[in-house]
Amino acid sequence: MARSVRTQDFPLAQVRRWLEPGAVVLISSRWQGRDNIMTAGWHTVMDFTPSLVGCVIAQGNHSHAMIRDSRQCVINLPTTALTEAVVGIGNSTGAEVDKFRTFGLTPAPATRVEAPLIGECHAQFECVLHDDALVARYGFFVFEVVAAHVAVSPQRPETLHYRGGGEFMLPGRYVSRKAKFTKVS
Amino acid sequence: MARSVRTQDFPLAQVRRWLEPGAVVLISSRWQGRDNIMTAGWHTVMDFTPSLVGCVIAQGNHSHAMIRDSRQCVINLPTTALTEAVVGIGNSTGAEVDKFRTFGLTPAPATRVEAPLIGECHAQFECVLHDDALVARYGFFVFEVVAAHVAVSPQRPETLHYRGGGEFMLPGRYVSRKAKFTKVS
Repeated sequence: MARSVRTQDFPLAQVRRWLEPGAVVLISSRWQGRDNIMTAGWHTVMDFTPSLVGCVIAQGNHSHAMIRDSRQCVINLPTTALTEAVVGIGNSTGAEVDKFRTFGLTPAPATRVEAPLIGECHAQFECVLHDDALVARYGFFVFEVVAAHVAVSPQRPETLHYRGGGEFMLPGRYVSRKAKFTKVS
Repeated sequence: MARSVRTQDFPLAQVRRWLEPGAVVLISSRWQGRDNIMTAGWHTVMDFTPSLVGCVIAQGNHSHAMIRDSRQCVINLPTTALTEAVVGIGNSTGAEVDKFRTFGLTPAPATRVEAPLIGECHAQFECVLHDDALVARYGFFVFEVVAAHVAVSPQRPETLHYRGGGEFMLPGRYVSRKAKFTKVS
């Protein structure tokens, strides 16, 4: 079983460093005393400051109404230590199972939202709903990240990048071209 | 210099297989007889059918007005064979340079849009603007992919995943959990 991770606060304007490479995330929510988690891969960074992230949370997901009504969630970044939980959560519904209990995850208190952090994740981004203009049409929520917590180590966690067909791509080597950037963010 | 790639048509409902893992893309456009390319990493799949992709193309980008006014573009998927072009395109502006010429890329005719394909890219997704509700506010364009072309090989191209700070993550190994999916798409 995965262990809870020791985190530290992370600059909101740099949250993109974790989300832009396209890893699968676990979105946790709380509404009317019930917690839930969903697996999601359809998300994008939208701005640095305020720190905005757009996510598709389709109406068919049990989390959709919970997040629409509570207007908050936590976007958690899992690693391969949580592969089975990521898959299990994505293939079951909060209408039937308690996802924290079923998958052995630890709900931890957040600082700015009621929704729980997932203690075992490499990073946790506390979000409040910033723009719901496309929620009804596409289930597309624009969130503002209002608090960010990232594990002290490792610097290059083994995130999961979904390729469809039940297959995930894992990170390989890194290459830097920093010297060729006119400005680096 | 990279070579043009031999492609075949690809099912629109499965375009997510290429974009969901979060690789950097090159977005090509044409407006009033001029072509341009921008590097972009802020994008997400939004639906299978119609095949929808959302992209942030900020107002500060020369491509913004070209794509807003022409209402089309091509999302091209580069590999590490194009690393220097990806970085160079992202650190120069179409207001000053002809990106195809400067970076040795080949504009190829698309089938459904006027914007050119980039011949050297692993995949090319022809897009028409589907929803501009969030364009003015965030530069967020919702595109429908109306034609898709993907290289015959390799099956697992070396895409570039931006981590900020001038650094890219490359793909490593793949893991399958297909047997644990209730349905696979």
